[in-house]
Amino acid sequence: MKIIDGKKISIEVLDEIKASVSHRVENNLKIPHLAAVLVGDDGPSQTYVNSKIKACNRVGFQSSLFKFDKSILENELINEIQKININNNIDGFIVQLPLPNEINQENILNEVSPYKDVDGFHPINYGKMALGIDTFLPATPAGIIELIQRCNIDLKSKKCLVIGRSQIVGRPISILLSQNKIFGNATVTVAHSKSDNLKQLCLESDVIISAIGIPEFIKGDMIKLGSTIIDVGISRVDDNSSEKGYKIVGDADFKSVSEKVDYITPVPGGVGPMTIAMLLKNTLKACSLND
Amino acid sequence: MKIIDGKKISIEVLDEIKASVSHRVENNLKIPHLAAVLVGDDGPSQTYVNSKIKACNRVGFQSSLFKFDKSILENELINEIQKININNNIDGFIVQLPLPNEINQENILNEVSPYKDVDGFHPINYGKMALGIDTFLPATPAGIIELIQRCNIDLKSKKCLVIGRSQIVGRPISILLSQNKIFGNATVTVAHSKSDNLKQLCLESDVIISAIGIPEFIKGDMIKLGSTIIDVGISRVDDNSSEKGYKIVGDADFKSVSEKVDYITPVPGGVGPMTIAMLLKNTLKACSLND
Repeated sequence: MKIIDGKKISIEVLDEIKASVSHRVENNLKIPHLAAVLVGDDGPSQTYVNSKIKACNRVGFQSSLFKFDKSILENELINEIQKININNNIDGFIVQLPLPNEINQENILNEVSPYKDVDGFHPINYGKMALGIDTFLPATPAGIIELIQRCNIDLKSKKCLVIGRSQIVGRPISILLSQNKIFGNATVTVAHSKSDNLKQLCLESDVIISAIGIPEFIKGDMIKLGSTIIDVGISRVDDNSSEKGYKIVGDADFKSVSEKVDYITPVPGGVGPMTIAMLLKNTLKACSLND
Repeated sequence: MKIIDGKKISIEVLDEIKASVSHRVENNLKIPHLAAVLVGDDGPSQTYVNSKIKACNRVGFQSSLFKFDKSILENELINEIQKININNNIDGFIVQLPLPNEINQENILNEVSPYKDVDGFHPINYGKMALGIDTFLPATPAGIIELIQRCNIDLKSKKCLVIGRSQIVGRPISILLSQNKIFGNATVTVAHSKSDNLKQLCLESDVIISAIGIPEFIKGDMIKLGSTIIDVGISRVDDNSSEKGYKIVGDADFKSVSEKVDYITPVPGGVGPMTIAMLLKNTLKACSLND
């Protein structure tokens, strides 16, 4: 069994980005600038945004945080986004989700300039992704592809099961891995909450990409020998043996599946660290496109 | 076994569209107007375009044909498309594919106004489709969904195999049938030229949607009893017993599979006739959105 070390690989990616920034500085090119839009005071959202800013500092990017009160009106927020769209100093920005219920998320994401949409959630970028046209790929699927490629895992002709059909993980990774690309050409099945007989589907698969957020759901007896598990789930479960009283686990029961898999991403330290790295890679790309 | 009569169902759809047009005329609303852009003198393309214009006449739509010599330059064609985009009398238009090799198809499709893109191939509409947002669905997948719905075939939790990953059929239908929609919630697998063991994949499936264009490829021994076949393939094969010397067949070997299926679309007379009907339905929608 080989553990796919997402933390190590993400550091490699960040170091490469840092080197690109140094190279840009030497050549008097613009320093990439990522901005984040944060509405309200949701704890996890603040933590995510802080991690992104911290990562910007690490690679030498400029960063900005646009923080708004949760009472901001939809049209006011759209107005703020339009200001960021025309701010030439900002290369890419993200709108941290979720937004307050009073604000229509779809309307907001549609306002983000496709040229600065480093999350890849604007319909035009999502459409390009589905059509196989070069664009900003959503960060988590891009991170999964980076892990697969850097570990030289060939998915061509492999049976690949994606569990979950979310717009940010399941849907895009299922499309990408089935495309005629160097990292793709897998035979991909998408399972979801309405799918029957998930155990049988897992047993028939060479590769399982799970993004359902049910702690330790995939057990050793559900997978075949020599399979690969990419675990996108992150759940917090009680753990009296830990100082914090909880531990972070993935969708796979690491102990039982690790006896059968060839490759597995751990949780934490697998897909998670890759997400921010790929967001920064998209921002570098957005900046380079303006050179 | 029940034959899904695409010809009959397409006539129902066309009659409904015709009734909507009459209703619009009575209410002094604009008559829908579909235009087609045809470049060069490719025989099948001319036939397709003529069928579309004929269907427009049948339902009471206005129609226009913009025909250009195959020597037209890409920027000249873009210029012509921009003129159609701002022509308020035209509600929707299609660019008949394929285009001459000298013209970049992607550049042309990107120029079509998303509001008039009744083929649903502009990245923004393709992205909305993939995101589950209401938009113009590509005509063939929309026709398949219409057939499934009008025959009351419930795909929820069913194992559905899509053979082929083209941008116009395989990719969109695989996404749509896996979405959480009234017609969807299937567990969808996409197979393609790099997939291994297609026979096994077929045998495991409740529903097979085939769009590979290999005549009579799917035989009776490749499918399970009680399955449904939606046959999108259209191939011409030699047939000495026919006056023309050829016959039109689908991807499925109708004779052997018909002994095992519950439902099947014939070729011709299955999915084919639905495509134009759905194109007109999109055009009616485009026109209505301007009311």
